[in-house]
Amino acid sequence: MRVPAYAAPAAGRPLAPTVVERRDVGPNDVLIEITHAGICHSDIHTVNGDWGPQPFPVVPGHEIVGVVAEVGAEVTRHAVGDRVGVGCMVNSCGQCVHCRNGDEQYCVEGMVPTYAGTDRDGTTTQGGYSTHVVVDADYVLSVPEGIDPAAAAPLLCAGITTYTPLRRWGAGPGKRVAVVGLGGLGHMAVKIAHALGAEVTVLSQSLKKREDGLRLGADDYHATSDPETFTRLAGRFDLIVNTVSADIDVNAYLGLLAVDGAMVNVGVAPGPLTFDGFLLVGSRRVLTGSMIGGIALTQEMLDFCAEHGIGADVEVVSADRINEAYERVLASDVRYRFVIDTATLA
Amino acid sequence: MRVPAYAAPAAGRPLAPTVVERRDVGPNDVLIEITHAGICHSDIHTVNGDWGPQPFPVVPGHEIVGVVAEVGAEVTRHAVGDRVGVGCMVNSCGQCVHCRNGDEQYCVEGMVPTYAGTDRDGTTTQGGYSTHVVVDADYVLSVPEGIDPAAAAPLLCAGITTYTPLRRWGAGPGKRVAVVGLGGLGHMAVKIAHALGAEVTVLSQSLKKREDGLRLGADDYHATSDPETFTRLAGRFDLIVNTVSADIDVNAYLGLLAVDGAMVNVGVAPGPLTFDGFLLVGSRRVLTGSMIGGIALTQEMLDFCAEHGIGADVEVVSADRINEAYERVLASDVRYRFVIDTATLA
Repeated sequence: MRVPAYAAPAAGRPLAPTVVERRDVGPNDVLIEITHAGICHSDIHTVNGDWGPQPFPVVPGHEIVGVVAEVGAEVTRHAVGDRVGVGCMVNSCGQCVHCRNGDEQYCVEGMVPTYAGTDRDGTTTQGGYSTHVVVDADYVLSVPEGIDPAAAAPLLCAGITTYTPLRRWGAGPGKRVAVVGLGGLGHMAVKIAHALGAEVTVLSQSLKKREDGLRLGADDYHATSDPETFTRLAGRFDLIVNTVSADIDVNAYLGLLAVDGAMVNVGVAPGPLTFDGFLLVGSRRVLTGSMIGGIALTQEMLDFCAEHGIGADVEVVSADRINEAYERVLASDVRYRFVIDTATLA
Repeated sequence: MRVPAYAAPAAGRPLAPTVVERRDVGPNDVLIEITHAGICHSDIHTVNGDWGPQPFPVVPGHEIVGVVAEVGAEVTRHAVGDRVGVGCMVNSCGQCVHCRNGDEQYCVEGMVPTYAGTDRDGTTTQGGYSTHVVVDADYVLSVPEGIDPAAAAPLLCAGITTYTPLRRWGAGPGKRVAVVGLGGLGHMAVKIAHALGAEVTVLSQSLKKREDGLRLGADDYHATSDPETFTRLAGRFDLIVNTVSADIDVNAYLGLLAVDGAMVNVGVAPGPLTFDGFLLVGSRRVLTGSMIGGIALTQEMLDFCAEHGIGADVEVVSADRINEAYERVLASDVRYRFVIDTATLA
């Protein structure tokens, strides 16, 4: 099956219309007619070659929502007409300790990324900037009624990336959570942490998005460009979710943590980070990271978001505006996620 | 009450016999006739001025075991003749969230260290290299029958320092624990982790103490000077307890952790440490620290050690050998803790 898509032909080149081959629907496969695909900053890093060589042409997109068009004979979990989603991975070994623990993203043999990865049959995966995709049913999520499909797409990456550490480190009533950075990931972290019942503070470079932050659910908002922020809030937070993939002053943020507080990085800074060991020992603080989340937790997150009326704040664009959207993401000119209306690809 | 003691008269000067004043026994106080006082590396750092100016003369010693000689009218927990111990702190506010949570070492007003600290009555605390000490009953531990008193003394610092992270991070059956460094702290970590049921590996600079390590309870022993150690054991451990207070290659140790594994520093390196953020995000690894432990947990540790027949491996010395012992600690020539027989002070 050959289907329309948008692909980067080579590193750093603009995306352009193309056609990709999708495999036949196997016994455990689901054919999805894609309706929406979010634009994640990772898509841009990948096609720009920031993360090393890629198997071009690359069709990005790992925030996919669509409708089931066909299912294989053994599929019981999804049926034709169901609203479904696909996130950052489309396969894993299914046998290793991490797969069995529901942490398929840490599969010992390596999870298969939704695009620019090598699937277990040896083919190169192609992502969601396309009209259709065929995915193993075990990696297809149910998108509950009640979330707008466009607003649901970014949940498959930005949503689960922030939901995982918020759950793991106990965000909830009586907990003080700081979210560093108010971009695609940050705005989801604010919404989810607020819905979990935590007191939420945004730490952003400036106060430019303050009104937005409070509307999204933050109780407080401070500028990290103001050195007083770090004295005023010293020792305040039980959890800091750092969504900024830049070199930051780790010690300054550790100083904001209470005893036993945790700082979780969901992005990776380009360079090495330094810290003062006393800041860990002195108050038993935790420095850690987190990468997306497993399939079962992703389903839990989608159900949680539906229950709490949470979706991403999105700007829906047609396929011919993908390159323009990329430029605007790089200029931080998006509140808070672009989502491609993939019907415009057909 | 004026009692014999050994004190450092000034920074870097040898310790010498002296006499110190102990306060009258108040209603909630316990007068302890000290029998044993461990020599902790912190004692040496403090009197050498490595940790800043001190209120000299300083009587070190925060690994104290003795017998109750007198109790105040309101003391119910301890009675004359009981074997008791005192660790790194002798007071705290008792009211703040950390004191109420049993983490007195993180008291918001600051815990009162056993020596070279300012007590809540304004006097300077003097430690256990002495024949007697008066301590608030709430900071006095019961030393169970069945632990040799000399071997019990180091439990009050080295024991609780390693017990706290082993408990907090789930050392037990089915868990793989690495202990970095086989000194005073490390040898306690090995004994306790083994008694908790974990599989224990020692990571030491060389294989010199390998036989000792296995005797203490380690299942495995590797040299960190051998680069192959870091490839052979990659991703192996659920928990690493780092007892080495030196600048180490954090990334190399993070690479030894499994998904969700934690590296806990119980010592503080002199300089800043650097790490690669991907090592945290990629496998959700945890980098943290821990500082001694609260009073209730210290009692739990003493009871646990008594139940499992655990004490420190000690070399008992008379008071006139304290300076010699300091030199041997600095030369790593001790297996594994010097303990002063304080009867030799009288």
